[in-house]
Amino acid sequence: MLNEKDIRIIEILMNDARTPYTRIADELGVTEAAIRKRVKNLEEKGIIKKYTIEVDHSKLGYGIVSQTGIDTEPDKFLEVANKLKDFDFVKSIHITSGDHMIMAEIWAKDGEELTEIISKKIGGLEGVRRICPAIVLERVK
Amino acid sequence: MLNEKDIRIIEILMNDARTPYTRIADELGVTEAAIRKRVKNLEEKGIIKKYTIEVDHSKLGYGIVSQTGIDTEPDKFLEVANKLKDFDFVKSIHITSGDHMIMAEIWAKDGEELTEIISKKIGGLEGVRRICPAIVLERVK
Amino acid sequence: MLNEKDIRIIEILMNDARTPYTRIADELGVTEAAIRKRVKNLEEKGIIKKYTIEVDHSKLGYGIVSQTGIDTEPDKFLEVANKLKDFDFVKSIHITSGDHMIMAEIWAKDGEELTEIISKKIGGLEGVRRICPAIVLERVK
Amino acid sequence: MLNEKDIRIIEILMNDARTPYTRIADELGVTEAAIRKRVKNLEEKGIIKKYTIEVDHSKLGYGIVSQTGIDTEPDKFLEVANKLKDFDFVKSIHITSGDHMIMAEIWAKDGEELTEIISKKIGGLEGVRRICPAIVLERVK
Amino acid sequence: MLNEKDIRIIEILMNDARTPYTRIADELGVTEAAIRKRVKNLEEKGIIKKYTIEVDHSKLGYGIVSQTGIDTEPDKFLEVANKLKDFDFVKSIHITSGDHMIMAEIWAKDGEELTEIISKKIGGLEGVRRICPAIVLERVK
Amino acid sequence: MLNEKDIRIIEILMNDARTPYTRIADELGVTEAAIRKRVKNLEEKGIIKKYTIEVDHSKLGYGIVSQTGIDTEPDKFLEVANKLKDFDFVKSIHITSGDHMIMAEIWAKDGEELTEIISKKIGGLEGVRRICPAIVLERVK
Amino acid sequence: MLNEKDIRIIEILMNDARTPYTRIADELGVTEAAIRKRVKNLEEKGIIKKYTIEVDHSKLGYGIVSQTGIDTEPDKFLEVANKLKDFDFVKSIHITSGDHMIMAEIWAKDGEELTEIISKKIGGLEGVRRICPAIVLERVK
Amino acid sequence: MLNEKDIRIIEILMNDARTPYTRIADELGVTEAAIRKRVKNLEEKGIIKKYTIEVDHSKLGYGIVSQTGIDTEPDKFLEVANKLKDFDFVKSIHITSGDHMIMAEIWAKDGEELTEIISKKIGGLEGVRRICPAIVLERVK
Repeated sequence: MLNEKDIRIIEILMNDARTPYTRIADELGVTEAAIRKRVKNLEEKGIIKKYTIEVDHSKLGYGIVSQTGIDTEPDKFLEVANKLKDFDFVKSIHITSGDHMIMAEIWAKDGEELTEIISKKIGGLEGVRRICPAIVLERVK
Repeated sequence: MLNEKDIRIIEILMNDARTPYTRIADELGVTEAAIRKRVKNLEEKGIIKKYTIEVDHSKLGYGIVSQTGIDTEPDKFLEVANKLKDFDFVKSIHITSGDHMIMAEIWAKDGEELTEIISKKIGGLEGVRRICPAIVLERVK
Repeated sequence: MLNEKDIRIIEILMNDARTPYTRIADELGVTEAAIRKRVKNLEEKGIIKKYTIEVDHSKLGYGIVSQTGIDTEPDKFLEVANKLKDFDFVKSIHITSGDHMIMAEIWAKDGEELTEIISKKIGGLEGVRRICPAIVLERVK
Repeated sequence: MLNEKDIRIIEILMNDARTPYTRIADELGVTEAAIRKRVKNLEEKGIIKKYTIEVDHSKLGYGIVSQTGIDTEPDKFLEVANKLKDFDFVKSIHITSGDHMIMAEIWAKDGEELTEIISKKIGGLEGVRRICPAIVLERVK
Repeated sequence: MLNEKDIRIIEILMNDARTPYTRIADELGVTEAAIRKRVKNLEEKGIIKKYTIEVDHSKLGYGIVSQTGIDTEPDKFLEVANKLKDFDFVKSIHITSGDHMIMAEIWAKDGEELTEIISKKIGGLEGVRRICPAIVLERVK
Repeated sequence: MLNEKDIRIIEILMNDARTPYTRIADELGVTEAAIRKRVKNLEEKGIIKKYTIEVDHSKLGYGIVSQTGIDTEPDKFLEVANKLKDFDFVKSIHITSGDHMIMAEIWAKDGEELTEIISKKIGGLEGVRRICPAIVLERVK
Repeated sequence: MLNEKDIRIIEILMNDARTPYTRIADELGVTEAAIRKRVKNLEEKGIIKKYTIEVDHSKLGYGIVSQTGIDTEPDKFLEVANKLKDFDFVKSIHITSGDHMIMAEIWAKDGEELTEIISKKIGGLEGVRRICPAIVLERVK
Repeated sequence: MLNEKDIRIIEILMNDARTPYTRIADELGVTEAAIRKRVKNLEEKGIIKKYTIEVDHSKLGYGIVSQTGIDTEPDKFLEVANKLKDFDFVKSIHITSGDHMIMAEIWAKDGEELTEIISKKIGGLEGVRRICPAIVLERVK
């Protein structure tokens, strides 16, 4: 199990993955080497899966972000979910117990591009039945 | 406007935010100093908003992740959305045009903790009308 | 009852309200005075309610058009519908037998402005229970 | 960008597209020629798309107006939307992110004609899955 | 228990309540007195509840018939259902296990009168939360 | 148009279709012959469509009455509605603008018979997509 | 962890909790004492929670079983769920992530009793907003 | 009909099917033989259908219990319901008048196994259209 130091390290890195180990070490009152070891351990156990960046989609020219529910024939949804992975405009895919088995985050330049993506790209995948885009108006957290 | 080099840098950093600039420089056929300058520019313009890590919630002891729709009295939803920000168990909050104005990602140890969070923590906020948790069964991308 | 000539006049004017009467007269094989008399009659009977223009909202700086369903306490919906009339951002209001008793077309600069309109302006009207925006992605006709 | 004079001209013309330029010129304190130039500019930029009339459908003998949601196979909805354009009884078509991808305004003489339109005309288009008519009870704005 | 003769009598009377007993007697091969006795028995047991007429609502000037779902606060629905009985425009009321606990058939002159009925009459009853009118387009049986 | 006397006659007959004309004549202060003439007129104009009886379904051995929504392929619903007419267990059929295009009242002995009717009889009609039974718990009016 | 013998014992007891240990012992090729010890262990660990009987509700005079969704004010649903426990007509209660936070199985004599239970008993609990009964037509397993 | 003693016996056995008859006899003030006779009678009439055990699914390694709505082609649902009976992971199946004709309780190790069950096992049955899992967060009664 994780102890409190590990959890604090994770919180710090989620907030800024570039925080120098020396500063984390100072805060936790341990050596930089101890931090390095703990982070390495978190990476090896797969608790830290990835270092990444968050970007501002509208400044990148994507005017519309859609949380898109996708309904499929029931025996096709894993297949569809896997095919969606290859589209660059699909930023994340979750299988959920909610109104739609597949929830995908899609970025598009504008309404017309989103219409194209839905009708031509996703709508064209075998087994897709219905596509329900919910437009993100604002991200609060 | 961004040129193709900037877009490639963003893709590389989204995939691994720790990629050394020298390696990016090699791939793009420019100097490390050029990469450093471009990244600085992307940060200053707010296109890169944050360096962060992705963690495996189940390995952290969170057995349940819920994409949670939250309905409120119509003049309270921004207020509720802002109060949700302070809860540690709320990992993201979107305002959408979909079935629920507020969509929040919530992490809980198990079904009982999620029940507690919904009834005591979120349910207790003034103006909250209905809470609809969709359990994430699997993350595909 | 309307005869065929009246109906053709209406079609022509719906398509271009500025079509010169002489041209309509030519097409229908009657005098310009006859057209003038018929149009006057259509106006007096209230069949032609208004001469207006259609504008391109995005070129006017409105990036988002929302077909907005508004649910109210049942004895308040006519009152709410009447108050909505005074908002400039509300372009049309229908009472329908569908999922929402009130359907209003709303124009906003972007997602944040729409969020403001929903939470502060419409959400603040007494008796409003729920607001369901459907974003217009494209107008086909 | 538009300045305040342009916006005022648009408002006046939306309210009555036949307002004489001399009266607009008076209100704005400029010459008639200046108004003419500005309107021409608004037309050329495509901001003013069309001069048209609003008619009273019930006085035209159409007893029923329906805001009709139309669901299609996902890769067929643009095709269906385009075919709907050719029907005279379809007065407008929007692609939206709401409960139905296609929303069409339909005019019919009575319930039986609407039933015919739905089952024979629209229901017969390839790819149409479900048709959900919401009857307009009253237009408020 | 009913025997076959009783069931046939009921069918005949449902189809035309004025069928002379002599004609029923002929069809069933019994005396008119036997029919009279059986009908009396069916009335006394409450199997035949009422003799009534079916009318053509549109010819009576009611342009709109609505199958109206009515949602109430859960402890008020029997009270609301009972109050609805007193309205002349309410032609039948069922308590169901479906989307709406109360389903009421309402007759109105036109859309505006239905709007009035919903907002002023039914909407004004204490405990009514939501009113969902489904317009009858055609009666097939 | 109908006058007040006609409307009162209709009300009396809806309440009890067997009310003797002499009694109606007394109430309205006219002769029996006048009533006879007016009723004949109401029948000829098709305002009175049918004389019928209301029966108690549970006393007839039908333990379950279901207001049944039936969804079909859009171009099949008139065909399906017409086929439903031939089933004895279907007591009425409406085409509506509500959640389901076809609403049919069905009588069954018990849950198992209703299950049979839905899966074997109605479910077997070509073009039927979905069947949504709402069980009538009580009839109030 | 459980081994295969434990799992087989559980299956046998779920099917018939009165199966003699000697017969289970024979099937598993162990002594009766070994079975007794294993069952005791399963009871002590809380894996076997209860020995109970399944009864035929209709033969007990309960004509209607309803899987009842209950919506409450969000901060009241645990309280409501706990109060429901005290009603004899409530046979089970689950908290779920589905359309309704509370799902309760209710037994009633007939539709009228269910109507009473919903409006007077459950509808009267503080915080209950909406009650959605789904009638069980048949139990297949 | 059952008398009060029978009903009390049923209650005692539902609570603990292993209660010795001597103890029941004491409580009811009758002989053990009388209890034995009554229980035998309840079994023979099919009122007591089965003696069984309730188990703790999470202690058995099933982390997820889902109340799963299953929609099928209307003429296939009895067939599908019957095929579901053969799956070990399906613990109960009801045919209901609610949102889904088939409601099945499913046990799975975790979200991934449930995803597999839905897409491969249930999704693969002929006639299955849509599968809507509602995750049980807690069992209250």
